[in-house]
Amino acid sequence: MNGFEFRIDHKDADTRARVCTIVTPHGSISTPTLAPVGTQATVKSLTPEQIQATGTQLILANTYHLYLRPGAARIAAAGGIHKFSAIDLPIMTDSGGFQVFSLGSSIRDGVGKIANIFPGDRSRVPHNVQRTKTGNNVLVKVTDEEVVFRSHLDGSLHHFSPEKSLEVQSLIGADFVLTFDECTSPLDTYEYTRLSLERTHRWATRSVDAYHKFSSTNSQALQVVVQGGAYRDLRETSAQFCSQLPCFGYSIGGSLGRSKFDMLKVLEWTIPLLPESTPKHLLGIGEVTDIFDCVERGVDIFDCVIPTRWARNHTALVSPTTFEEFNSHRLVSERGDSNDLKYRVGMTNSALKDDYTPIDPLCTCYTCQRFTRAYINHLYRASELLAYSLVTIHNVHFFANLMTEIRKAIIDGTYATLKERYVRPRLT
Amino acid sequence: MNGFEFRIDHKDADTRARVCTIVTPHGSISTPTLAPVGTQATVKSLTPEQIQATGTQLILANTYHLYLRPGAARIAAAGGIHKFSAIDLPIMTDSGGFQVFSLGSSIRDGVGKIANIFPGDRSRVPHNVQRTKTGNNVLVKVTDEEVVFRSHLDGSLHHFSPEKSLEVQSLIGADFVLTFDECTSPLDTYEYTRLSLERTHRWATRSVDAYHKFSSTNSQALQVVVQGGAYRDLRETSAQFCSQLPCFGYSIGGSLGRSKFDMLKVLEWTIPLLPESTPKHLLGIGEVTDIFDCVERGVDIFDCVIPTRWARNHTALVSPTTFEEFNSHRLVSERGDSNDLKYRVGMTNSALKDDYTPIDPLCTCYTCQRFTRAYINHLYRASELLAYSLVTIHNVHFFANLMTEIRKAIIDGTYATLKERYVRPRLT
Repeated sequence: MNGFEFRIDHKDADTRARVCTIVTPHGSISTPTLAPVGTQATVKSLTPEQIQATGTQLILANTYHLYLRPGAARIAAAGGIHKFSAIDLPIMTDSGGFQVFSLGSSIRDGVGKIANIFPGDRSRVPHNVQRTKTGNNVLVKVTDEEVVFRSHLDGSLHHFSPEKSLEVQSLIGADFVLTFDECTSPLDTYEYTRLSLERTHRWATRSVDAYHKFSSTNSQALQVVVQGGAYRDLRETSAQFCSQLPCFGYSIGGSLGRSKFDMLKVLEWTIPLLPESTPKHLLGIGEVTDIFDCVERGVDIFDCVIPTRWARNHTALVSPTTFEEFNSHRLVSERGDSNDLKYRVGMTNSALKDDYTPIDPLCTCYTCQRFTRAYINHLYRASELLAYSLVTIHNVHFFANLMTEIRKAIIDGTYATLKERYVRPRLT
Repeated sequence: MNGFEFRIDHKDADTRARVCTIVTPHGSISTPTLAPVGTQATVKSLTPEQIQATGTQLILANTYHLYLRPGAARIAAAGGIHKFSAIDLPIMTDSGGFQVFSLGSSIRDGVGKIANIFPGDRSRVPHNVQRTKTGNNVLVKVTDEEVVFRSHLDGSLHHFSPEKSLEVQSLIGADFVLTFDECTSPLDTYEYTRLSLERTHRWATRSVDAYHKFSSTNSQALQVVVQGGAYRDLRETSAQFCSQLPCFGYSIGGSLGRSKFDMLKVLEWTIPLLPESTPKHLLGIGEVTDIFDCVERGVDIFDCVIPTRWARNHTALVSPTTFEEFNSHRLVSERGDSNDLKYRVGMTNSALKDDYTPIDPLCTCYTCQRFTRAYINHLYRASELLAYSLVTIHNVHFFANLMTEIRKAIIDGTYATLKERYVRPRLT
């Protein structure tokens, strides 16, 4: 008996948006959903009970980080990641392939999975450079057989291959595991991206074999990673190739081009060519605007560091109605992508010192039931750790609630109306 | 009707140890008890529910810090500190007097409330120097009328007097408020300590008047601070003077001498001269050994940063039985006061990486019911905030449980046996 099921519960009449159910050994997931990231087997600052209470259905943990520390064998000895972390929710691990990119060409070229480079705007590149302890050196060497990389923690040398990735993911023991891939850079040439994609496909085949060697299909489901950069023919080739592999679902990997516009094109090229009755996961994406644009192109699962990272950056997410109230009091800064301005507010704003309402009066999360903006403002200003927990709870709940609203709107046929409430017209 | 009551439930036959009940508007407190410190209206990293679940009965917040940030008027506007912080437990505020010391002669001379200076050991002094943003300058000027000090946050100038302290404490709205005092240095001369004590007594009288002006006796109870340094006649004079003031109870302030031995002498001189039917609070003390030594000298209430601060320093407290198990595996370092060695263990020890038992298998706290040493070791090594919450929960619970054991042992007549389990003979 297989511990996993996937079924489509409702399809939108006008778009590719849909509501589905995924059954896993750790409970059912209603999609579309967003997985907060728990890189190191903890959703930063939250207890398992606090995570559960936000309505979160799935968590993404990072194989590369857990392999280095505490080590996959230790997690296995603890009984797997669920017992190790005491998180009794479905968990997905990535394959480590993204770190091949982020330790390699991402450092070399100073870009993320979307380059955000516009014509005449090359000046942005240097600002994005992510430095490591070893400075600006590339830490990765990729061959057909394997990837050799140095740990960002201590510089020690490690070898990762499809077989190694799947073995490590089996030891970690998440519900969903991913095939090992090379994530190319948005700056790579067509020719390099094509050669890399061929390698990623060979690795996918090896990953499928390794998955059957190391994992039980009852306890771990395999997602195949689709690549191909921002090139239509490569994305289509990849989608067609991956469709032929035996697996549970698909994770669409970056690079996703030079702008959010390219990212949406990638989805339009890819998703229609993948089997309909499989979950589609878009790796590492999750701003509110993106979620709406991607759900209507057929994405079922997102994962993103925004809810946790923004809390550490003193930023909370609020509903459009509450945002208007903030906005009318000129409490919103102009910082950040203008597409995000409809829902992000800074909690260290001086105007909040005397504001005795919750972060979002319309929100039902633990934090908004118990604490005021004034108290949270005070905690941030005093560098008190409780601020991070409280706003992380709120932000994670914000996304869980948003995804619930999205599922409801798809079923009710009111998706376009909901999107209009949250998203202002794109500027691209 | 007065919202406060004090009653003695049981007295030890051999010592001054006793079990008492204090009724407050926010619930009853069984003593002896230890109040974790919540300096900035938060017990560092814990939610109110997490604090409650540890069995904590009382919290101490710092008037000086809350006065500077967020400001007492803001806490009053929120409805008082209980509503501001959502902590529905009895809370005590200190008077700000200790900061007069810690910003003043403590910086100048490099000493704490116990000097820890032994004959021929003057070399220790420089290591204790607490520096502030303004470097090594003394930030305080004390006159009979008031204290003028500079904020450690921004250098701004502030005036504190008995009247101001009690007004601020009334605005903060804790259950217990303290009279304003000058805390002298263990290095001060007899003559300075005597003159300072006379001023502290004049301030105590002014504080009593201010308390009646600003506070309702139904919602706030007054503790009078006893001073006198490590001089027997001054401590006796202070106890006799303070006994005559109308108040709910007494807080015994530092300086407490040049060693823990002096501190115990101070208690022996002071407590017998104070009215029996009042709670005795020893300000800022709370290592395990100290607690046992002080309870049998008549202390009812302790407050201490150890449970929270040690968690941030990767240190957990364990029962003597569990300590022996650690010890037998050579997991205990020799760092720290040898008197503490019977219960403190470092959680980043490499040997814990593969240890899948709870911090203390005998402990009933949330953390020990759910997580292993291996996971907590991992969280600390990965600098994950959850480590601080989990070990703070454990450490705060450790003290709540210790105080419960102490109360039970007093009632059962087994106090000496319990003490022997926790405390090794003093080296002084």
